[in-house]
Order: sequence, then C-alpha cells, then structure tokens
Amino acid sequence: MIPISLRWQGDATGHLELIDQTLLPGRLKWIACRDVDTLIEAIALLRVRGAPAIGIAGAYGVAVAASEAVRDGLPADAARAHVRDRAELLACARPTAVNLRWAVERVVGVLTRLPAVATAAGMYEAALAEAKSIHVEDRRLCAAIGRHGAAILPEGGVLTHCNTGGLATGGAGTALAVITTAWEQGRRFDVFADETRPLFQGARLTAWELVERGIPVTVLVDSAAGQLLRTGRVGACIVGADRITANGDTANKIGTYGLAVLAEAHGVPFFVAAPSSTFDLTLETGDSIPIEERSAAEVLRPLGVQAAPDRARAYNPAFDVTPARLITAIITEKGVIRPVSRETVVKTLSAESFFA
Amino acid sequence: MIPISLRWQGDATGHLELIDQTLLPGRLKWIACRDVDTLIEAIALLRVRGAPAIGIAGAYGVAVAASEAVRDGLPADAARAHVRDRAELLACARPTAVNLRWAVERVVGVLTRLPAVATAAGMYEAALAEAKSIHVEDRRLCAAIGRHGAAILPEGGVLTHCNTGGLATGGAGTALAVITTAWEQGRRFDVFADETRPLFQGARLTAWELVERGIPVTVLVDSAAGQLLRTGRVGACIVGADRITANGDTANKIGTYGLAVLAEAHGVPFFVAAPSSTFDLTLETGDSIPIEERSAAEVLRPLGVQAAPDRARAYNPAFDVTPARLITAIITEKGVIRPVSRETVVKTLSAESFFA
Repeated sequence: MIPISLRWQGDATGHLELIDQTLLPGRLKWIACRDVDTLIEAIALLRVRGAPAIGIAGAYGVAVAASEAVRDGLPADAARAHVRDRAELLACARPTAVNLRWAVERVVGVLTRLPAVATAAGMYEAALAEAKSIHVEDRRLCAAIGRHGAAILPEGGVLTHCNTGGLATGGAGTALAVITTAWEQGRRFDVFADETRPLFQGARLTAWELVERGIPVTVLVDSAAGQLLRTGRVGACIVGADRITANGDTANKIGTYGLAVLAEAHGVPFFVAAPSSTFDLTLETGDSIPIEERSAAEVLRPLGVQAAPDRARAYNPAFDVTPARLITAIITEKGVIRPVSRETVVKTLSAESFFA
Repeated sequence: MIPISLRWQGDATGHLELIDQTLLPGRLKWIACRDVDTLIEAIALLRVRGAPAIGIAGAYGVAVAASEAVRDGLPADAARAHVRDRAELLACARPTAVNLRWAVERVVGVLTRLPAVATAAGMYEAALAEAKSIHVEDRRLCAAIGRHGAAILPEGGVLTHCNTGGLATGGAGTALAVITTAWEQGRRFDVFADETRPLFQGARLTAWELVERGIPVTVLVDSAAGQLLRTGRVGACIVGADRITANGDTANKIGTYGLAVLAEAHGVPFFVAAPSSTFDLTLETGDSIPIEERSAAEVLRPLGVQAAPDRARAYNPAFDVTPARLITAIITEKGVIRPVSRETVVKTLSAESFFA
C-alpha cells in the first residue's frame, strides 16, 4: 500500500477520512470526519500531523462545514455564517501550524467570492473543489521534490530523521519522497531512520511507510547516528523543514542540528527537502526563529510509560535550527538550492512556478 | 539518601543486598542474595549494572558461595570445590564485564592461598574480607576521581550521559562523582542528563540519583543536546568510560561520540572520568575495539512498548568510540590526563598509586 494521510470519500454527500496516526504502527484505523468537531479533535490530538497534511485536512474541513449546513437545511445567510464560524475554529485547531490557517483561509476566500445568494449546496461544491485543488497541488509539489532530490542523491545508504512522507503531506512527502522516488527509479540502498525522540515519528511512522512500500528500513536510536556515520554506511542525510529563513537556516524537528554537525564531521552531504512555501523570507536568519518548548511529559513518559523520577525536570525543545553552512543543498519543487545562501535562495524561489 | 548499588548485611551469617535497578525510579526494592543463583540472576537481568558495581557484587558472591558451604555443613574439600564451581558461574554471569571476572578471581585467589585444611567458615571469612577490600578500594577510587574532577570543572551547567554514579560503582561513581563532589563543595550549577536511549539509564538512574541527593536535574532526549549546547547553558560535558586505549580513545555508551563532536563544535570541554583499571594498554587505538551490537528489541520496543512496525530492522550498537582528540581531559584516581595522548596516558598511569 502507498501510505497516505487522508482522502475524500463520496461526492454530494461526501466526507473526509484520516488515518489515526497516534495508533500507528500497531493499528491502521481510518477516522470518518462527517462533522467539523471530529476533525478539530483529530487535528488537536495529532491524529493527523505534518504541516502540509494538516493544511489539506483543514481545507477539506471547510467543505465538511458546508456539508453540515446542507444536512441541516440552512438558508444561504445562515449557511454562510455557519461555515465562517466553523472555519475559524478549524484554523485555530493547532496554533503553530501556519499551513492550516493558510489553507482554511484559501477555501474561505473562494466562498467569499460566491454570489450572496449561493446555497449551502453551492458552497459545499465550491469548497470541495478548492480543497481538492490544494490537495492535488501538494501531491505535485511532493512529486517534484522527489524527482529533483532523487537526481542528486549520491551513492550509499540514506539516513533520515522524523517523518516527512505520505503521512505528513498530501502526496509522497518531502525528504521521504526523495528516498522513495529514487527507490522507484530502481536504485537500491540502505535506508536508516532515526527513531526521533520524543515522539518516535521515525520508528512509528517513517518505518511504517517504508515497510508498507516494501522498502527495507533500519531504525536506530537518535544517538547512534554518529556511530552509523562513522561506519561509512551512509552516503547522505536528508531531512524535512518546518521553516527556512532567507539565508537558508532551517528549523526542523529536534535533533536535526546535531545530525547536520555529525554529517559535516564525516564529510557526508546533508540535504533539506521542503516546498517553497516553507521559506519565511521575512526572517533574515535562523536566530530570529523562536524555539517552541513542549511538555515535559513527552520526555519523562516515553510512550506513556514513566521513565524518570517524579521530581526530575525536562528540557524539551520541539525544534532546532540548522545553520545554512551545514546544509549541502535545499531541494524544493522549483529546483535545488546549492550552495545554500541568500542569493541562491532568492534566485530559486523567484523562478517560474513549477506549475506555471 | 546517598544512592548506592549494594551493601553487605550481617557478619557470620551475612548476605548481599542489591537494589533492583530495573525497577527504578518507580520502585526502590532491595534484593537479598543469600545464594549464588539469586545473584547470578540479578547480574544477568541487569538488576545490578555498571562495571565496578558488577565486579563488587561478584566479589561478594564468592563469600555468598562460601556461606552456602557453611550452611550445608560441607567439609573442607567439598567446600573448596563448591566455592570454585560457583565462582566460575559467577564470573560468566555477564561475559562482557571484565571487572566481574577480575574481582571474582581476586577473591578466589585469596582462598587458593588458604591452607588446604581451611574450613568453610574460614573460607567465608577470608572471601568476605577480600570482597570488602575491593568495595572499599572502589569507594576510594570514586572519591579521588570526584575530587580531581571537581577541581577542574569549569563554570556553567554540566551535561552528562548514561549513569556513572553510585548505582554503577561501589562508591559515588565516576563522572557523576565529579558532579556530586563539586555540588557538595558548595558549587551550584545546572545539571543536565541525557535520557540515554535505548535503556534510559540517564532518565531512570542518573536523574534518580541526583533527585535522591537533592540536586536538581533536567532530563533531555539525547538528540536535544545540540540545541542545549547552542544555548550556552553548558560549561562542560562529562561522561564515564567502558574501555580506554593507550592513546586515550574511549569506548563508552552509544551517543558519547556524537556528544563529543557537538561539544567540540561549541567549544565546550569534554571530560571522561574513569578509574585507571579502565585503560586497556594492550590496544593502541580505539580502532581495535569491537563494537558490540545488542538486541533489536531495545530499539523497537522502548520500555517494553512496541514503537516500530514488526518488519522494521534495528541498528543497535551498545557503544561507540570517542577519539582522544575530542577529549579535553581524562580524570582518573591517579590524576588528570590533559592533554590526552599516549605519552600523558602512560605518564599518569605509571604514577605512584593514590593508595600507596
């Protein structure tokens, strides 16, 4: 099976279906979101995660809101108010996910441009069409990133961190798409996945995606990466990104920075793969990216089991920032930024869109 | 409470007591070892761990074997054979722990030098006295390491990896003794403990020891060390050692090497603390140290909970080797080796013993 995070089911009376990622890899359970509350809960509880996947889920969520209005037989005015209220709740379901608000607002924007007399059914149709567009675009972005990345992937094993695959996006992923695309092109290499403490996205999700695709995967504890690199079995490290500043500094899952330092120490190329929407050109360097700290329980109670004594504190930064000088290349849907600098970032991002 | 790993209880009819470290930090349970089988099981199941602590437990185990002979009323010949058989089993309880065989053989050596007519009670007395000597020596080694290390510990927070404290030794520990000694001298600083996947010795044991001593401790996932170092809150990293070669290359718990690379990248001194018995001068460099791989389950089932899919493989090296060039100083009971080189290693190790 090709791993995906979500799908739209049905048409006039359709609904959104999501994989409950909190149950993976033990159990593959689809959640039917026939109302916005179910979807908001799924987003808040990380049943769906990964910035692009959350955005697409939010976009479809506006269609779900409109379908509620259709089901309740609301007249045009009430339907419009209903959808707007629900959309605002959706956009706030996870405050740090910029893609979520962006995607919800894009669909709401389409509805705003409908004639004032548009029925709930008309809103539903328009919202669904726009959400599907966003989904299709993301799928194309992933495919382009996979293609550009596979073209420059060197010989040898590949080590990745966290989950950047079909579960995190609407398509094949970002960093993981590079790996799976190269594999589909017939290349064969060892794939290593850092387990990615504290939430084990590497062990739980990346390993699951690769196994589902029939690609052998070897999981390691994050701190074994240095020893693995030392053995010479890794030809490239490749990771995703949460935010990239104008000079190429990259915020990503905690542990990315340490891995980049180790890759440099061993002369192993270090690649970042992300869509151009990940760039925040309003920030000059990574120094201005605030580092979010998450709950101590993620560290002290791995997988819900108490590991540390009650009185221990925790330091739990969700992200770290990898400076551009440690990044060999950034792979975007618009092409490869290499070497990474303010000039090459701007040049690649201002290129004609891949879809133009 | 001052954390210890084991203690001898009683005299003529005494026995060994061990903390069951597999139950920490949730539960503090002492195991009474009145027979060798119980002790062997405790060693094999990692209820007692840490090379020095295992060695001391093995030494006391020979006294336990003699007490079995006393209890069973064995005559001299039979008692001698019994103790010899049990000692051999003890020495094999964990094949990789060199201290275990060394300590068991040292006590057996004392018995060998007893007159042939020595009774079981006489053997018991001699074995117990020698085991207590080994225990006392280890306590002194730890104290000396703590003192030498505290004298050179720079300002700022201290980051440590794995468990190197009272639970791992017969005294205050090695690397952890440096931290606790400096603290007892009245210095105040932040103490950070890597959780130390796969077995969480940092979160479970080091954090427990520090909390028991009233020293505040902050636990982090191993991969957050890079970000922590970046914040400037760490003035020194300090770790223990499993084996040190003639040039100063140091084998230690997986993750030590990566931490040393990160410390160097941030200009933070990286200290190794270990007794001189940890040096293996028969090996010129760390390249000759074989890296033991442990079970996949430690990686794929953290704390017994399934994290990765069934078909995932694991890479689980127990140790890595940190090259001498990344080590600022090695702290031994005989003094501080700094800078670390073949010459300084030999010079410090050939110094008069601390106890001479």
